[in-house]
Amino acid sequence: MTESTAGDRPATSRRRFLREGGALVGGAVIAGGLGGSQALAATANADNLPPNVPEWMKTPGDPMGSQPYGTPSPFEKDVVKNIPKDLPQYLSASGRTPLQDLDGIITPNGLFYERHHAGVPTIDPAQHRLMLHGLVDKPLIFTMDDIRRFPSQSRIHFLECSGNPEYKKPYGKTASDLVGLLSCAEWTGVSLKLVLQEAGLQPGAKWVVAEGADAAALTRSIPIEKCLDDAMLVYSQNGERLRPQQGYPLRLLLPGFEGNMNIKWLRRLRVAAEPTYSRDETSKYTDLMPDGSAREFTFYMEAKSIITRPSGGQRLNAPGFHEISGIAWSGHGKVGRVDVSVDDGRSWQQAQLQGPVLTRALTRFRLPWHWNGQPAVIQSRATDETGYVQPTLAELLAVRGDNYTYHNNAIWPWRIAADGEVTNANA
Amino acid sequence: MTESTAGDRPATSRRRFLREGGALVGGAVIAGGLGGSQALAATANADNLPPNVPEWMKTPGDPMGSQPYGTPSPFEKDVVKNIPKDLPQYLSASGRTPLQDLDGIITPNGLFYERHHAGVPTIDPAQHRLMLHGLVDKPLIFTMDDIRRFPSQSRIHFLECSGNPEYKKPYGKTASDLVGLLSCAEWTGVSLKLVLQEAGLQPGAKWVVAEGADAAALTRSIPIEKCLDDAMLVYSQNGERLRPQQGYPLRLLLPGFEGNMNIKWLRRLRVAAEPTYSRDETSKYTDLMPDGSAREFTFYMEAKSIITRPSGGQRLNAPGFHEISGIAWSGHGKVGRVDVSVDDGRSWQQAQLQGPVLTRALTRFRLPWHWNGQPAVIQSRATDETGYVQPTLAELLAVRGDNYTYHNNAIWPWRIAADGEVTNANA
Repeated sequence: MTESTAGDRPATSRRRFLREGGALVGGAVIAGGLGGSQALAATANADNLPPNVPEWMKTPGDPMGSQPYGTPSPFEKDVVKNIPKDLPQYLSASGRTPLQDLDGIITPNGLFYERHHAGVPTIDPAQHRLMLHGLVDKPLIFTMDDIRRFPSQSRIHFLECSGNPEYKKPYGKTASDLVGLLSCAEWTGVSLKLVLQEAGLQPGAKWVVAEGADAAALTRSIPIEKCLDDAMLVYSQNGERLRPQQGYPLRLLLPGFEGNMNIKWLRRLRVAAEPTYSRDETSKYTDLMPDGSAREFTFYMEAKSIITRPSGGQRLNAPGFHEISGIAWSGHGKVGRVDVSVDDGRSWQQAQLQGPVLTRALTRFRLPWHWNGQPAVIQSRATDETGYVQPTLAELLAVRGDNYTYHNNAIWPWRIAADGEVTNANA
Repeated sequence: MTESTAGDRPATSRRRFLREGGALVGGAVIAGGLGGSQALAATANADNLPPNVPEWMKTPGDPMGSQPYGTPSPFEKDVVKNIPKDLPQYLSASGRTPLQDLDGIITPNGLFYERHHAGVPTIDPAQHRLMLHGLVDKPLIFTMDDIRRFPSQSRIHFLECSGNPEYKKPYGKTASDLVGLLSCAEWTGVSLKLVLQEAGLQPGAKWVVAEGADAAALTRSIPIEKCLDDAMLVYSQNGERLRPQQGYPLRLLLPGFEGNMNIKWLRRLRVAAEPTYSRDETSKYTDLMPDGSAREFTFYMEAKSIITRPSGGQRLNAPGFHEISGIAWSGHGKVGRVDVSVDDGRSWQQAQLQGPVLTRALTRFRLPWHWNGQPAVIQSRATDETGYVQPTLAELLAVRGDNYTYHNNAIWPWRIAADGEVTNANA
């Protein structure tokens, strides 16, 4: 009963679509209509028409079982983590998510961003322990089985490195170069509050000092308020167990806090009256101001957004309808709105937010756009539910200078040339 | 500033936790409290205590860049698709999601279930075409670039094979054996309604016949109402492009409809007045009743649920607190509630649903439970937002018999023996 396409290919259909289609596509979503005829002209090539039966229908495909754990199509081999050349491996190694190639809000685990201070340890979960001590009634040591016995919860949250991107030129070319130290996943684990209650907090417990089991023993101090709010000890990410690069078998998750505080390979929690002023919160991860003072304990990742399509390194093939799509997020809660400018910041239009809009998660935004073929600068601006508005780079630099590398949440514009090439407008 | 654990290991802490911990863990979530002392006794072994500094902290770990596209920890090597032996590869090949090993609702792409009728074709997206013809004003042929030009949308939906599980014994041992032809992902693509509007539907357009570009040319007829509702043409799954096993580069997504209708490698949509009565909706995917009649076009996957932890093949190490966790779903919309019985169906307790509860998506449910160490039978029962209640297997068999293999959405009980072993109570 399978139908054949032989003889019924509509030979003229493609040309009719190309002549009329753009207007309909755009017309369905943009008030005022579009130019139309040129919208999809770039692909108007009769040579592109398919054979009635493509080669891959003529023989059976790959058998089941060739990939017990699957991998992407070989045609997507270039969609990998963006790893800078000449990395100082055991000081500041990072691999960035290829945001410009992704859709939606979930980052697949194979492309989740990484940032390591002493490489990725290989940890046997049966040997791993978490110690909880300090200002508690009962110091405790947990196996992974113990952790798994606690009641669980699952939530979707973003994670972002605090240095994403740096303030100093040269800036990168692509969305990944600029803010690829950013990803989002569904995390499953245990409420940290429940674990702390198990040990019993003593009077004076104001901070929890978390230590990782990597060779850097990355150590950060976390205010007790966060630990008793939405902090989690997570063991799973997008359904499966954490990847080694994300802290297997156990990671601290502090939704909305800068990435390095979400301690990977978590081995120790010490409850204390004061922060520990570790290497990782004094010589690093503080923000040197123009007057020589330093902002410290700058935990929250502020509201931010970026257009990922079209973005640097991509090209608009032709004038006409193009959807502008990007991601927005805030460490303080939900994204309230995103505005998009297509005229170098002179005017702004409110973008559509893809639901569900979740707290401290990426939110996908979209705006239909008709590109007239003239040079343009496009950019997005996030406002979170607290009313905080994402600043321009000039506004940030005026206040903070460029003596440091953290918490750059500036609006980032893309320049579109007359030939459709998209480049970093701040570079 | 990194702290040393030397000298401050609380030598007695573990024993105190083991003596008192269970009650606190359980007490936080169960009214009435728990037995306590034996809760975590299975791990009460001083030999398990960690060295102060584990081996993996003494040398740097793996360098960045060793995995441009990441893979799971080697310690998770057994968490792979569950592929039955002796598959008829080009007739009924399937690989099941290891549901009992997963948390949350998102299935990682590497573990998404598969079901193929002629293997997995390798398709060059630059060569792939989608033809739309039949009762339309303008027959059209789309390249993938054309499809990507349309406005996009992203939604989280489950997919389930209609034969999940079969009605006849022998049933499987694990949650994956039973209902592992089920997964859930965030999909991105184009509204099918928008694409049909682009071509212009003619009067009398009541069905859309969809054909895949595999060697089976899998072909199904879809009512026009579904096509104009929430149907999508999807190209991305959990952020990245579809995997080959999921229809790369283009798949039809019909949220809530049986899996085989969500045509992979989509190459053709023919708008028609009647269904096409293809091989795949006559000799297969119809439901033979005891009286010899056949139910056909049984599109919707009805409300269903299963406990994944504890589930068949797992073992409870000790009496005491255990969280019961599982997944529920309905092709008709949102899960309304899930009830759990721990006494072989005599009484039921309402489980907690993990938000956000999304339409036609998996919903994770949880119930805190104190196992008293006696044999028990546990099971879950989903009710969807329409009020439909998941039936028992006996109720289903009484109405439908076991002459066919599709649409078994029965409640599935697990038996827990006194030694903690969990087995299929229907087997």
